[in-house]
Amino acid sequence: MLINGIATEQLQATDRGLQYGDGLFETVAVVDGQPRLWAEHMARLACGCQRLQIPLPDSALLLQETQQLCADQPRAILKIIVTRGSGGRGYRIPETTEATRLLAIYPWPAYPDSHYQQGITLMVCHTRLGCNPALAGIKHLNRLEQVLARSEWQGSDIDEGIMRDLHGDVIEGTMSNLFIVEDEILITPDLTQCGVNGVMRERVLALAAELGITTRVESVSLARLKAASACFVTNSIIGLWPVRALDGINYEQGKIMHDLIEALVQILDEPRLATITS
Amino acid sequence: MLINGIATEQLQATDRGLQYGDGLFETVAVVDGQPRLWAEHMARLACGCQRLQIPLPDSALLLQETQQLCADQPRAILKIIVTRGSGGRGYRIPETTEATRLLAIYPWPAYPDSHYQQGITLMVCHTRLGCNPALAGIKHLNRLEQVLARSEWQGSDIDEGIMRDLHGDVIEGTMSNLFIVEDEILITPDLTQCGVNGVMRERVLALAAELGITTRVESVSLARLKAASACFVTNSIIGLWPVRALDGINYEQGKIMHDLIEALVQILDEPRLATITS
Repeated sequence: MLINGIATEQLQATDRGLQYGDGLFETVAVVDGQPRLWAEHMARLACGCQRLQIPLPDSALLLQETQQLCADQPRAILKIIVTRGSGGRGYRIPETTEATRLLAIYPWPAYPDSHYQQGITLMVCHTRLGCNPALAGIKHLNRLEQVLARSEWQGSDIDEGIMRDLHGDVIEGTMSNLFIVEDEILITPDLTQCGVNGVMRERVLALAAELGITTRVESVSLARLKAASACFVTNSIIGLWPVRALDGINYEQGKIMHDLIEALVQILDEPRLATITS
Repeated sequence: MLINGIATEQLQATDRGLQYGDGLFETVAVVDGQPRLWAEHMARLACGCQRLQIPLPDSALLLQETQQLCADQPRAILKIIVTRGSGGRGYRIPETTEATRLLAIYPWPAYPDSHYQQGITLMVCHTRLGCNPALAGIKHLNRLEQVLARSEWQGSDIDEGIMRDLHGDVIEGTMSNLFIVEDEILITPDLTQCGVNGVMRERVLALAAELGITTRVESVSLARLKAASACFVTNSIIGLWPVRALDGINYEQGKIMHDLIEALVQILDEPRLATITS
């Protein structure tokens, strides 16, 4: 772990990241020593820093520290946290703060092959996502909703939980974005009120456009999710997992998902993705 | 500062308090070496720990460490943070975590006497409070909304910002709870959808009941706030500040607020409170 360039796991407890969740993070797949989708992660981090008025750390420095940590990693997860740094007691942003940057390497998670090949089982979480356009979309450190939602199930019968907003519309998974296929159209929930705009979500939307698939970003009710012909979740680590089942409903996979997977395989170097369609 | 009983300002960066804002805090007034309203703070912390399924630190231990830090302090602020501790990457709550407790002493803030004697000036913040009943009321570490709201003004023309929910109803100040007086009734906004249930708010409601003042906890529109005869804010550090002005509207103080202040003076050992009504 590197904190402001120094190899340590100790953070100043006065850091506003701890005091208020006053910061952002990125979870980056590392493959063959290189961070995957780096430009996209940096773009989202920059957007988040701008939204929260946190000074963006120098991107060359972030890349240098990333390469230092990732060089020997065939496959790992890099978590980058940027906080507003230490300063003051109280919510007021001090006039002089220096952002804290924290880079840490974690082992690649042992997700089973079946998550790719057979797809995953979803549940609908009881915990809702609160709405707040000021925080929607960015990957900030205020994640209690996700912690509570993820605590709703144990064991391996359920692989991911779907979170709804307070109106009951489906928004995303606890750690993934959600897509459905409906009448040959690819649909993903609108994230202007809540949710995290995933790097892989953006990539999938762009790939779909390149492939000539009609896409829509709009509100999705639970009834629409259940009536969809196909359904999948994405994030920057897993790439894409087909959804097999939700509340006793079974989904098919279909051509749109398969076309997207074939395109993703070219980009992501994720051999298990290729096994879905083969 | 004491972290898990050890005099240090360094926290494990893997702590979920930093990673997800997965924790709670209390801001306690210390007067003559003693924490004020200790039982009330501990009750709210216990409630928060139960809501978030965080193991509550031993209360005798918390009191012992508090007394260790506060003994020589004539007047100071004690901030207690309790997090879910270190564990895992990902939102899932690990099976074995030990809560982190962090106690820190800060100087008493230099609020001007005029905040008590003449009252404060409010503004209405642009930043809204998102609604989420799962998190409403408790003093958790997800405080980006307050940070953004507090960044909306600089300088000393404004003393506190009022935050509304997404429907436009008035909820609280960035660091205080709000009360209005309307037709000789004391009203404070309902906090079941968002907001922090302040220790001083609870105390003022209880005092009002003892004094035979009719109280109501209900939704308060901005129009009602502006039409109120009197208005004040509370928190555990300041006690109570009368509101003098909001958007060019001037409030009176009136008998209900004065009766409450006289009762609070007996409890809080805050000499400046007594100057309001004298």
